[in-house]
Amino acid sequence: MELEGKVVVAQGGGPTAVINQSLVGVVLESRKFRQITKVYGAVHGVSGIVNENFLDLTQETTNNLERVAVTPSSALGSTRDKPDEKYCEEMFNVFRMHDVRYFFYIGGNDSADTVRIVNQHAERWHYDFRAIHIPKTIDNDLMLNDHTPGYPSAAKYVAQAFIGMNLDNRALPGVHIGVVMGRHAGFLTAAAGIAQKYPDDGPHLIYMPERPFVVEKFLADVKEVYDRLGRCVVAVSEGIQDEAGTPILAKLQATETDAHGNMQLSGTGALGERLTALVKEHLGISRVRSDTLGYVQRSFLGCVSTVDQNEAREVGEKAAQFAIWHNIDGSITINRTGYYSVDYQIQPFEKIAARTRLMPDEFINAAGNNVTEAFKFYLNPLLGPDMPSAHRLRAPRAAKIRDSK
Amino acid sequence: MELEGKVVVAQGGGPTAVINQSLVGVVLESRKFRQITKVYGAVHGVSGIVNENFLDLTQETTNNLERVAVTPSSALGSTRDKPDEKYCEEMFNVFRMHDVRYFFYIGGNDSADTVRIVNQHAERWHYDFRAIHIPKTIDNDLMLNDHTPGYPSAAKYVAQAFIGMNLDNRALPGVHIGVVMGRHAGFLTAAAGIAQKYPDDGPHLIYMPERPFVVEKFLADVKEVYDRLGRCVVAVSEGIQDEAGTPILAKLQATETDAHGNMQLSGTGALGERLTALVKEHLGISRVRSDTLGYVQRSFLGCVSTVDQNEAREVGEKAAQFAIWHNIDGSITINRTGYYSVDYQIQPFEKIAARTRLMPDEFINAAGNNVTEAFKFYLNPLLGPDMPSAHRLRAPRAAKIRDSK
Repeated sequence: MELEGKVVVAQGGGPTAVINQSLVGVVLESRKFRQITKVYGAVHGVSGIVNENFLDLTQETTNNLERVAVTPSSALGSTRDKPDEKYCEEMFNVFRMHDVRYFFYIGGNDSADTVRIVNQHAERWHYDFRAIHIPKTIDNDLMLNDHTPGYPSAAKYVAQAFIGMNLDNRALPGVHIGVVMGRHAGFLTAAAGIAQKYPDDGPHLIYMPERPFVVEKFLADVKEVYDRLGRCVVAVSEGIQDEAGTPILAKLQATETDAHGNMQLSGTGALGERLTALVKEHLGISRVRSDTLGYVQRSFLGCVSTVDQNEAREVGEKAAQFAIWHNIDGSITINRTGYYSVDYQIQPFEKIAARTRLMPDEFINAAGNNVTEAFKFYLNPLLGPDMPSAHRLRAPRAAKIRDSK
Repeated sequence: MELEGKVVVAQGGGPTAVINQSLVGVVLESRKFRQITKVYGAVHGVSGIVNENFLDLTQETTNNLERVAVTPSSALGSTRDKPDEKYCEEMFNVFRMHDVRYFFYIGGNDSADTVRIVNQHAERWHYDFRAIHIPKTIDNDLMLNDHTPGYPSAAKYVAQAFIGMNLDNRALPGVHIGVVMGRHAGFLTAAAGIAQKYPDDGPHLIYMPERPFVVEKFLADVKEVYDRLGRCVVAVSEGIQDEAGTPILAKLQATETDAHGNMQLSGTGALGERLTALVKEHLGISRVRSDTLGYVQRSFLGCVSTVDQNEAREVGEKAAQFAIWHNIDGSITINRTGYYSVDYQIQPFEKIAARTRLMPDEFINAAGNNVTEAFKFYLNPLLGPDMPSAHRLRAPRAAKIRDSK
């Protein structure tokens, strides 16, 4: 028997370049079912639910939805609220008041946990209710997923940025440090490795949170590369930690007393600043620069993986189908079935919620300062067929007439 | 009578996304003339000339040249050497030794001055010699040029980055400060204004070096926007100065004693850090972030204006034609002849060399904290026909059942 009622879709956590594809997938698919009375979008995630702040997406044009789908960053707005039991109960009360029978939450592992708790309230009250978590995160850190929507496009941006940084560093040699988002998982930083086309291409060193970052080792690594090539490009994750698990940024800032020291990792160039200062002081290299890629990694307009776009749309469509056709709750996952093909499954919330997936060992080299070919083989198809690459002049040297001074 | 001999082409200063288009334009066009015995590329600019470090581009395949043309950043390598009289004389001696009769230097206003001095030596020694400066700079600050190759692609990157920053800031409100390259001229920072599509879109404030930056005014501006919209996106040029012409970065750092204070403007997040700290301290806003766009502005692979690509190719081709067909020396300029069409002229070095063009007054608003429609009308055609834009949901609000808490 069909479950009639409203749909609510919401977006949580950090935006991605394709998060609106999933939103539009849910809306367009849901609107096909006659038992769906309305499709609401919650404004600013869960906070929009407890405040009854909904857009009636039943009335949105399909044409405009398709244009929003190719626009980066949560079109409904997002939130950093982390609902507790009380908050989730309040969400459930609003759902019941509005006869909402289907809840789709597009977000990371925290969002999965929120959906799980709300669903428990529905069960406790014997309220017939379907709740689905739709995966999204540029960190690529959700359990059971081969990868997560948003990651491929962010990875493509990071790869293209490091291809450019390497070319720039080759034209004007020095040490160039690029800081990439990623608090616990190194997947996004690892994507910089795609820039390694020619044997001497950077990034020559890649540091991920999965391996302890030792300052002395870092300086020795940079010196080795610089002595060999006369230049060095480094990719570091903002979340790199020491053996004790203390973030390097905290360690380096602890030695200082400047006004703006705080433990926020993104939206600050502090880590790049500190590492740059270390290289200048200890290696005596004059031209040392750092770039902190910042929020454009997840929101840049005009650098998206078509594979990511298609998959982000499909996890939204599949979410609607699992819930409305099949009456199943859970978290949608992307599973790799070939090279390259995927299918979508639905898993219990518990297997995804509030857990973090890290880089597998075979993706990180033994020295802990670069990625492996296995990682590049994993990432390549996700970047899409139009991933550009750099080319060099191959002309021979001309003969000298007199030896140069 | 045809002037027979070798061609030398070199690239100077900061790389751009299309500087290799100009290189390839010179090489392919020069190779058509039978009086050209060889086409050499100087490795790392003028330093490659004094060291006789040349690639024989006569032997480079056309196919590979076309692939290099679409690769950002100086394929021959660049240099920060600023040749003095002695250095230029040395360059001329190498040219004479190699029977080089044509010199093409792709660079900014310093490069134009170098070409001028080398040409003077040739005249002094009655050595028959053609020297051409080919314009290149993301700063867009060359005299007599409507715009300069490299600027449109960098401007497109900055515009797309701020479209993303604005969307991100709209999803997760706060204050977001983006720092853009530009030591003296504000053209590149001004490009952020293209992100202003909907009435409340950021950047809400744009600060360029052409107007004095007053910290108190800046804080008042941010407060006004934040109080009105609950969020604020700011674009600032790395080169902003106070009334006395002192760089703001120097002023703000003077109040500190941290290890990494230095007056380098690019490749550091310091200015964004300081402005972020000011907003937090004085306005008590918690979520304040800064992004320093960094070197990707000039080298990012995969964000280029097709208009820029075509023009960069043509200034190279025209340079070869002016020198080899017409026996003229000088600096190539781009002149706007319609909306949108251009032609290319050649001007005396003196009118370009070592001078800087700034934003005209009609491009900056009266308050000195934003750009005008006139600027957007100027910039729009340079971004090319495929410039993307952002789209919003337009669905109506759903009725509330009970007033939200």
